[in-house]
Amino acid sequence: VKSTAIKIAYIGGGSRYWARELLADLAQSARLTGEVVLFDIDRPAAEKNVAVANAIFGRPEARTRFSVRAATRVADALRGADFVVLSIEPGPTSLRYVDLEIPARFGIVQPVGDTTGPGGIARALRSIPTYSEFARQIAAHCPKAWVINYTNPMTLCTAALYAAAPRIKAFGCCHEVFHTQDRLAGYVARWFGCPQPPRGEIKVDLNGINHFTWITAASWQGHDLMPRLRALVSKPSFFRSRADEARKNKSAEQYFHSPGLVAFDLLRRFGALGAAGDRHLAEFVPWYAVNEAELHRWGVVLTPFSWRLRRSRKADTRLEEFSTGPLKASGEEGVKLIEALAGIAPLHTNVNLPNRGQSPDLLPGHVVETNAVFRRDRVTPVVAQALPAGPAALVRRVIQVQQLTLKAALERDPDLAFQAMLLDPLVHIPANDAHKMFKAMMRLLAPHLPGWRASGKN
Amino acid sequence: VKSTAIKIAYIGGGSRYWARELLADLAQSARLTGEVVLFDIDRPAAEKNVAVANAIFGRPEARTRFSVRAATRVADALRGADFVVLSIEPGPTSLRYVDLEIPARFGIVQPVGDTTGPGGIARALRSIPTYSEFARQIAAHCPKAWVINYTNPMTLCTAALYAAAPRIKAFGCCHEVFHTQDRLAGYVARWFGCPQPPRGEIKVDLNGINHFTWITAASWQGHDLMPRLRALVSKPSFFRSRADEARKNKSAEQYFHSPGLVAFDLLRRFGALGAAGDRHLAEFVPWYAVNEAELHRWGVVLTPFSWRLRRSRKADTRLEEFSTGPLKASGEEGVKLIEALAGIAPLHTNVNLPNRGQSPDLLPGHVVETNAVFRRDRVTPVVAQALPAGPAALVRRVIQVQQLTLKAALERDPDLAFQAMLLDPLVHIPANDAHKMFKAMMRLLAPHLPGWRASGKN
Amino acid sequence: VKSTAIKIAYIGGGSRYWARELLADLAQSARLTGEVVLFDIDRPAAEKNVAVANAIFGRPEARTRFSVRAATRVADALRGADFVVLSIEPGPTSLRYVDLEIPARFGIVQPVGDTTGPGGIARALRSIPTYSEFARQIAAHCPKAWVINYTNPMTLCTAALYAAAPRIKAFGCCHEVFHTQDRLAGYVARWFGCPQPPRGEIKVDLNGINHFTWITAASWQGHDLMPRLRALVSKPSFFRSRADEARKNKSAEQYFHSPGLVAFDLLRRFGALGAAGDRHLAEFVPWYAVNEAELHRWGVVLTPFSWRLRRSRKADTRLEEFSTGPLKASGEEGVKLIEALAGIAPLHTNVNLPNRGQSPDLLPGHVVETNAVFRRDRVTPVVAQALPAGPAALVRRVIQVQQLTLKAALERDPDLAFQAMLLDPLVHIPANDAHKMFKAMMRLLAPHLPGWRASGKN
Amino acid sequence: VKSTAIKIAYIGGGSRYWARELLADLAQSARLTGEVVLFDIDRPAAEKNVAVANAIFGRPEARTRFSVRAATRVADALRGADFVVLSIEPGPTSLRYVDLEIPARFGIVQPVGDTTGPGGIARALRSIPTYSEFARQIAAHCPKAWVINYTNPMTLCTAALYAAAPRIKAFGCCHEVFHTQDRLAGYVARWFGCPQPPRGEIKVDLNGINHFTWITAASWQGHDLMPRLRALVSKPSFFRSRADEARKNKSAEQYFHSPGLVAFDLLRRFGALGAAGDRHLAEFVPWYAVNEAELHRWGVVLTPFSWRLRRSRKADTRLEEFSTGPLKASGEEGVKLIEALAGIAPLHTNVNLPNRGQSPDLLPGHVVETNAVFRRDRVTPVVAQALPAGPAALVRRVIQVQQLTLKAALERDPDLAFQAMLLDPLVHIPANDAHKMFKAMMRLLAPHLPGWRASGKN
Repeated sequence: VKSTAIKIAYIGGGSRYWARELLADLAQSARLTGEVVLFDIDRPAAEKNVAVANAIFGRPEARTRFSVRAATRVADALRGADFVVLSIEPGPTSLRYVDLEIPARFGIVQPVGDTTGPGGIARALRSIPTYSEFARQIAAHCPKAWVINYTNPMTLCTAALYAAAPRIKAFGCCHEVFHTQDRLAGYVARWFGCPQPPRGEIKVDLNGINHFTWITAASWQGHDLMPRLRALVSKPSFFRSRADEARKNKSAEQYFHSPGLVAFDLLRRFGALGAAGDRHLAEFVPWYAVNEAELHRWGVVLTPFSWRLRRSRKADTRLEEFSTGPLKASGEEGVKLIEALAGIAPLHTNVNLPNRGQSPDLLPGHVVETNAVFRRDRVTPVVAQALPAGPAALVRRVIQVQQLTLKAALERDPDLAFQAMLLDPLVHIPANDAHKMFKAMMRLLAPHLPGWRASGKN
Repeated sequence: VKSTAIKIAYIGGGSRYWARELLADLAQSARLTGEVVLFDIDRPAAEKNVAVANAIFGRPEARTRFSVRAATRVADALRGADFVVLSIEPGPTSLRYVDLEIPARFGIVQPVGDTTGPGGIARALRSIPTYSEFARQIAAHCPKAWVINYTNPMTLCTAALYAAAPRIKAFGCCHEVFHTQDRLAGYVARWFGCPQPPRGEIKVDLNGINHFTWITAASWQGHDLMPRLRALVSKPSFFRSRADEARKNKSAEQYFHSPGLVAFDLLRRFGALGAAGDRHLAEFVPWYAVNEAELHRWGVVLTPFSWRLRRSRKADTRLEEFSTGPLKASGEEGVKLIEALAGIAPLHTNVNLPNRGQSPDLLPGHVVETNAVFRRDRVTPVVAQALPAGPAALVRRVIQVQQLTLKAALERDPDLAFQAMLLDPLVHIPANDAHKMFKAMMRLLAPHLPGWRASGKN
Repeated sequence: VKSTAIKIAYIGGGSRYWARELLADLAQSARLTGEVVLFDIDRPAAEKNVAVANAIFGRPEARTRFSVRAATRVADALRGADFVVLSIEPGPTSLRYVDLEIPARFGIVQPVGDTTGPGGIARALRSIPTYSEFARQIAAHCPKAWVINYTNPMTLCTAALYAAAPRIKAFGCCHEVFHTQDRLAGYVARWFGCPQPPRGEIKVDLNGINHFTWITAASWQGHDLMPRLRALVSKPSFFRSRADEARKNKSAEQYFHSPGLVAFDLLRRFGALGAAGDRHLAEFVPWYAVNEAELHRWGVVLTPFSWRLRRSRKADTRLEEFSTGPLKASGEEGVKLIEALAGIAPLHTNVNLPNRGQSPDLLPGHVVETNAVFRRDRVTPVVAQALPAGPAALVRRVIQVQQLTLKAALERDPDLAFQAMLLDPLVHIPANDAHKMFKAMMRLLAPHLPGWRASGKN
Repeated sequence: VKSTAIKIAYIGGGSRYWARELLADLAQSARLTGEVVLFDIDRPAAEKNVAVANAIFGRPEARTRFSVRAATRVADALRGADFVVLSIEPGPTSLRYVDLEIPARFGIVQPVGDTTGPGGIARALRSIPTYSEFARQIAAHCPKAWVINYTNPMTLCTAALYAAAPRIKAFGCCHEVFHTQDRLAGYVARWFGCPQPPRGEIKVDLNGINHFTWITAASWQGHDLMPRLRALVSKPSFFRSRADEARKNKSAEQYFHSPGLVAFDLLRRFGALGAAGDRHLAEFVPWYAVNEAELHRWGVVLTPFSWRLRRSRKADTRLEEFSTGPLKASGEEGVKLIEALAGIAPLHTNVNLPNRGQSPDLLPGHVVETNAVFRRDRVTPVVAQALPAGPAALVRRVIQVQQLTLKAALERDPDLAFQAMLLDPLVHIPANDAHKMFKAMMRLLAPHLPGWRASGKN
């Protein structure tokens, strides 16, 4: 079997695990070889990743070799690339103050704040210009490359690529659905008395938008899992308060554990299972993130901004550790997707793509998340089962907000941006307070919003 | 000129001004004659209206005569009718406790609560079965009659008629847009130094749903009013707090005065003017009806349930007074619409009808409010100007709630009804509290919801 | 009552009655005054029209005066215009050889050949670039002007304006529906034993595309005319062959008389009445214009190309006669439309406009013909009754051809143009013959199709 | 590995190869076992198939056993079935006189006449009531069964199932695309100098309706085949007349050989490759089946009705031969689809299903043909690439005819049926002749159209 040689441009990733995980997965792919060019606006971070990469490909268990280098200009990285991976942090971590702390002052709390709500909108406003520029560069330097986006807000970053370059071959990837499959695999083990099956054996029908995706059907080996899940959520005890655990997790700085109650409450109330972590799901509707105490009741813990700042500074140390361990599969699918698109082996998985018909009940053209078939040079979404009326309505109202946000960013229009904010389901504060919040956020975002016109509104 | 003879069936109206105002307007129409048959489940109320009607048609200034009688069965009233007027109170006034007081206990306040929000949903759930039955009776006894609906929730009562009898010739009428035109006529007088023109001279482009209709363009004698309106709302002083006036109005039991600030704030924030009273508009979004104090800030006063109860008991006295004064035009359009449909004179006005294309940016089939041309046996909506993106998004999310509410009522499904409640923009309380509120409401509504299945949800 | 002063730019019209009829109607409008500027690529023709205009406005029965002049550049005519009238002949009459004679050599006969079929497509291909240029000039020189198009192919000329300038305020006007109303008025006189009512009393529900418009309902004074029309077409004798009359008309060079049988056969077969002359209707389907004999059977006579050429040379003489007679109403509506848009008196009539919802069953955005309300600075289409399934299908397949034709012209793509030709219902000849026909036509059209790319197809 | 036990109901197939081929393929499937119940209105034919089946399963190379029996009532066959195969001849072969000979008398020739054109419409009218009844029986006796339809007209038979039982799990299967893949595989061998690859290696993007499906992209091992195909059709010699070969084939009664020129001419003219045999493709447009000579020019030979009659009588003899040979794969996919739906191995292939989004540019709900993923208890279509404008227009006009035909059959309305006939692209004869043809056809179809209302039309 001969290897396929490819060029991968990796944009961003300097301060994150993502790049190194992808490099490690690549090292385990016997069928691929070629070149990886890293670009990060933090040039030393990219250089460090080159060193890590060389260590990775030099390990005895590596099954292939790639030449790895850092580029000083994004155009150098992109030129002639077959694949482009986009994984950036839109602005320094200190900007997360805008996303999380300013809204909190007005009573709006968000566990993540990178996808929806005031935090997600703020992040979208500053990411979209960057992504428009990526799209233009890709159209100029590697128009036929496949572009894999990992950055949040996933939906709007991917949408921004298509808005700027309609023929781009881009899609968004996210592991939240995998975690839901893993959780279901755990139940399968319990229900059927077998070892926990790999998540790929949990077949799901998927429909929605990233981080607010819904499972309308799930089966394992032909066993329909939905009746068992419905039985589970029919027991009041299942939904007992998790406030104590949450408070303990908060003290222990364990912010990312959550028992999945929100996903299941959506199943109880709306008849379809939320297919993302509760920290995300709770941000799309106004009934869980009412305040910190209510989030605790569902076992969701807020991540303090101060901790986020500290972690970002410690990132280097953690990365050191990474490159010295033995190679193992990351659980992410990036390399499998690349293999499928390179013609090595087809793959059936979930993906974020503009809606050409795969979500017939959602807005045409909007970036939605469904299953898709990946094969040589093709990503073809499959047509999703329709969402029940309730979940469809919930998703549609978020899509409205996302559409307004995108329009605001593309037209550089602060008034539209404020309209998006007012329409977000998390914003139910007095209109004038909302406007104060918005102005406070925009003041700090201003340096990242070049060319915006001023608002005429008082 | 000879008169056209028609039969009008008037269903409901026993305890309200509406019937008597229509009778008075009818008495002033030189071109119509015929028969009016009144039906009300409160038979004595209908009988009283017959007496009033005879007094009205007996007055010297009456220009026509109609024979008027009360029917004991709705079928008798409908048989052979050319026009059916529907104007009922869905359930006794005491049921408004469900609409207003139970939500208030959970922190959700509504000035009117008959159209949207928890109150509007509760009222829709109990009105829809009644309207389904009206539709069946009309299809059986007068399938070619024009059906004029005055009952709230306007959108869903009208939708229920079409759901049960798709070929029904029904439409909904509302005077809220007239009041907005009157307000604009007042500004015209001020701006142009002329006497206040009649509202018909204020030409408006309309689009939306009842009580959440929007004016996207307005002119008077060819003068574009929009730039002047935008100048108005660009002054911060225009939006100064009206809390003092509101508190005074509250003390004086003046619940229905409001300065229109909400309609204008929507213009400021969203670029189109709200075309209904603020008491209604404030219920469609979560930024004004946050609590009583916030409503006062905008000059909107809550109407106490106790006062409503008292007024409904006093209705008789007020009606006595009505029938003794001289005939004058009510300002309502019912009789003009009847004249237009009878072929006497065409009319261009606003109307609520299923969306066949008149609101291209809103859901097809949903009952929307736009302008229309009334002529002999035809109501033809005109195609509305598209709403700007923001108002379109605001209206669409309410339409989602209305669609779920209708589906819940038609399928008698409490779980869908709760989903509608959760999706309503006014509901931003913890999910479990919302469920408690919903169960409390449903307990009192149960006698009015025959045949509903029980919820399996805890 | 004071007059409203307007500027009208009249583009084209040099060799046609149209301009002079409009001028005569204008002279009879007591409420309008101002300036008319004529532009024609045939400058002497425009000059002659100025002279005629001065004669018209100088007549004793003229109720107003307009200053009239000819412009040497189209920009001069347009600058500051309130209204633009477009009424051109796309290319010299000799080009009609392409439209009519080449197809005839391949067995495809067309009575008019200016709207659909190979002739209509050829005419569209050469008109669209001219109309694109008009749109750009109007956008530059009088972007707020109302643009009235009289040129055929009406649908695609109007569509070309919107394609080049989406914010243009243009619509297409056609009198074919008026003639159908006149025909119905004639039946009313016969059926009701009354004098023939004016066509405005015949109320019709209209839907379709220009020259292939359908009447789905018709009434006079509240009398439904449809049952009587259906009774008419249920008699076989009604459809007896008109071949003898047709041959007589042919000998007498009476090409434009036709008994309306095709319009009525459409009613018989498809349940809705064709609302245009048979010479047009017969070109949209392949069952009447099979050959000359079959057309004669329906009373439709082909107009020889030679006669057309002769007439165009004689035009001058006929025009002389025109200007010396007394002023009388032309029956056209142009001036009434201008009055309505100037705010003088609203008008309810038919119009060709991009479909924003007025024809919910036809393609959104395509130029369709329906009723509309004209009032001050507004043309608002009303929502048409849906077409029955059969007529809807007939119209949709023509819309497909028109869409392809427009795309071909805008992209200057001969292969798309040939696809449009192959898809036209009149083209049912062998594919290779069709290609020969197409190439023969394109060879003569080439000078009028600047910038087209060559076809790569053999 | 253990076998999965299933019950298959096979309806029809008595007089055809299909049933026996499926049985032979089944015998080669090591992973399936269970029961096959045959039902045919020709009971002896079904009995004969049982005997053949027993011979097949008794052969030494058979890898599984199924018990096989014939049922006397369709309900017995269906009860408890996991899979239902539908493969009937709608009416006796003598009825093909209606489909083929009557139209031919009016100048309309069809090589197959089972899908589209007057023949296809006639066949649809008599099949649809049968299929409505199948759907009702399946809903009653095996609502969860997967239903595989092989009968033509594929689109309308499948549509009839969904019209009568919207929750049915039915799809249509056809091998025409396979043959196109085989043809492309032949070119691959020639172009790349390799052995002819199996058709599964030819990856195609598919979109359209059955027998009028289009390939918009094709590749083999990552090699794009479209540029090579376009080069092929750019040579005039490729399209030289095949009249001589056709006449020879006609003499030799070789009706089913055709060189594929029509499929390639569609590529040349419309930019996408026809993905069905030329005998089918030529019936969807009016430029090839103009007359017999023109069909010969493209190498297509008409099959005489007399020969069809003779063959149907000889069928028995041919079947005898079938059951005695060794088992080999039929090339059909029925058993692979059953395996996939039983959870044994997923399959990616083409299928006919109601359009839920897989053909975004074609009518929602209409049965379309695209690729799909088959896996355990799921058939999920993938979203097809949009058709170019020309092919989309060609397909849409056929969809219009199919929609009218279906509506006519469901409403038992002869006038709608005639409208469908008039709209069919093959019908370009005088309207009155078309009506005569239609009446002649309906006279013979009448016994097969129970409950139809009479036409009021002369």
